[in-house]
Amino acid sequence: MKIAVLAGDGIGPEVTAQAMRVLDALRLPELTVFEGDVGGIAYQRHGHPLPPETLTMAREADAVLFGAVGDPACDNLERHLRPEQAILGLRSELGLFANLRPACAMPGLEGLSALRPEIASKIDLLIVRELNGDVYFGDKGTRTQADGTREGWDMMSYDEAEVRRIAHVAFRAAQGRNGRLCSVDKANVLETSQLWRDVMIEAAADYPGVDLSHMYVDNAAMQLVRAPGQFDVIVTGNLFGDILSDQASMCVGSIGLLASAALGERQTQYGTFGLYEPIHGSAPDIAGQGNANPMATILSAAMMLRHSFGREDDAARIEAAITAALDHGVRGFDLGGSAGTVDIGDAVLARL
Amino acid sequence: MKIAVLAGDGIGPEVTAQAMRVLDALRLPELTVFEGDVGGIAYQRHGHPLPPETLTMAREADAVLFGAVGDPACDNLERHLRPEQAILGLRSELGLFANLRPACAMPGLEGLSALRPEIASKIDLLIVRELNGDVYFGDKGTRTQADGTREGWDMMSYDEAEVRRIAHVAFRAAQGRNGRLCSVDKANVLETSQLWRDVMIEAAADYPGVDLSHMYVDNAAMQLVRAPGQFDVIVTGNLFGDILSDQASMCVGSIGLLASAALGERQTQYGTFGLYEPIHGSAPDIAGQGNANPMATILSAAMMLRHSFGREDDAARIEAAITAALDHGVRGFDLGGSAGTVDIGDAVLARL
Ligand SMILES: CC(C)[C@H](C(=O)O)[C@@H](O)C(=O)O
Ligand SMILES: CC(C)[C@H](C(=O)O)[C@@H](O)C(=O)O
Repeated sequence: MKIAVLAGDGIGPEVTAQAMRVLDALRLPELTVFEGDVGGIAYQRHGHPLPPETLTMAREADAVLFGAVGDPACDNLERHLRPEQAILGLRSELGLFANLRPACAMPGLEGLSALRPEIASKIDLLIVRELNGDVYFGDKGTRTQADGTREGWDMMSYDEAEVRRIAHVAFRAAQGRNGRLCSVDKANVLETSQLWRDVMIEAAADYPGVDLSHMYVDNAAMQLVRAPGQFDVIVTGNLFGDILSDQASMCVGSIGLLASAALGERQTQYGTFGLYEPIHGSAPDIAGQGNANPMATILSAAMMLRHSFGREDDAARIEAAITAALDHGVRGFDLGGSAGTVDIGDAVLARL
Repeated sequence: MKIAVLAGDGIGPEVTAQAMRVLDALRLPELTVFEGDVGGIAYQRHGHPLPPETLTMAREADAVLFGAVGDPACDNLERHLRPEQAILGLRSELGLFANLRPACAMPGLEGLSALRPEIASKIDLLIVRELNGDVYFGDKGTRTQADGTREGWDMMSYDEAEVRRIAHVAFRAAQGRNGRLCSVDKANVLETSQLWRDVMIEAAADYPGVDLSHMYVDNAAMQLVRAPGQFDVIVTGNLFGDILSDQASMCVGSIGLLASAALGERQTQYGTFGLYEPIHGSAPDIAGQGNANPMATILSAAMMLRHSFGREDDAARIEAAITAALDHGVRGFDLGGSAGTVDIGDAVLARL
């Protein structure tokens, strides 16, 4: 069981260190850990945010634990050298097309949401975001027109194979949950969305137990505020998924608790190869102070055990330890408490 | 002063009728009103959601009052025949590139928002959405690749002239408000956004009193939930503006109260030519029952008097009458009350 740990920038190293303590404590058989540079730190050391050695290390692992990338010192670099490009490069080079972002109210933490408690407490949804296509990875550029005017352009597209494979991930996820799948698009304006909708409807034939509905993205952004409890699984493209999943995480209120998985088609001897990362970013303003909440990264490690290593029991153990710590009142600064990064690691370890 | 009233589908005719009662009561000099078919009703009568006669009527008017379009009976039509295409056609044919969508907490109505009252009560923002470009109006299509696979595609683009003209609208709006402008883009991924950001920064040189900031769209969707009170004016492209303005309206809580203006460059003898419409849609489920709240349309008529007819006093009179009616406890069904469409019209008229 090979794990590549790409801790990255800002609070990335602090939070991944706690997740690795938790994994170590589980005494998993044959666990080997490699550490690679990624993001701003990789640019500083190797001149590129995603050096070839890092990519090779990730490819050769069974799973990747990713911290965060982003460094204000890199803000003026050309885009392809900026830290954020590392995560886009990993998703695309490793074929990680399915991003699972669960957002679930945590009992006792409803008060953290900006939504009224009776609304926030009903949130229990999973966003399945396509991660390898859309306007993210199409041709793009800036051109100067004949009259000297600059124009920026980006091609948005999906082909049916790309939509079908994410559809299957989403339908299967809905089967394993409450059987409701809402596909979000902008089919009243976009041809890309019309194809997306058509293929979703075709795929539905294979899942008679799942109730498929469709929603325009503007309405979805409203409904996620008005009544997020109506959603079970949401499936959407790369761009809309970026916006809606961040919005949904804020509806839950505790961005320091939200984990994510990025999965592809590759199977290892243990499970599905994947990359796991907290939803939050590198938070440069609080880096190095020992105040970051590692719970989202620890929960990402649990998702890794579940999806990439078939170790449901260990995943559930970690999740139960997090819940127990929260129930006991352990709160990071993001949750209005004063538990530091290592304190929280200790608290989770003590409850494993 | 020529107004083209395009009432459209569903509750459109009901709500525009009340707005016209209010305009009539003001006894504006030389007011002439034309009525045209648009949307599903226009498709039924003329075979097209935006018949040439309607477009001509709109062009020859000094302002357009628009109700709503959308009819479930048209769901299976080809896209270019669906009711929603009428509003896209009007925006583009009439060069209405600047969409102003104010979202403001209404005293006493904070309880309607899904956000906690202390957060919702701080909302006082204006979204300036570009309305003539972006992935909405680029080339688009569906093609079948050599192997028979279908692909949908849409070209996203902005040129600097398009960005500059919306930048000026937004900077001027910020000058007239609290002097803060937040430009929302996805410049870490999109070339279109990078150009957008560059041009915003260039335009800022003309407005030394305005504080310009930049935010990625995923973060903006979070911040609009977490702390919407931080925003004064938001400027963004057509697609992001569609999503964020609907989200913001739901943060206010009362979609039945939110008005909008779509302005272009054309000046008439009275002011800027524009199209005014409520944010809400045609609501086919409640059409014809006399239960729709006309306040958003009445407030849109007030925006018309302000922007297209230079009648600030009359606009303020209408807005004060709406506030007085709300203060008096007049509540439509959308606000948890039982005042019907005509009741609300009466209540506003009585307070003009
Ligand atoms: C950093 C950025 C490129 C990335 C994205 O847009 O996908 C991030 O927002 C995310 O959601 O993981
Ligand atoms: C009806 C639709 C095409 C339209 C849009 O996307 O612009 C609507 O959502 C709006 O915001 O006015």
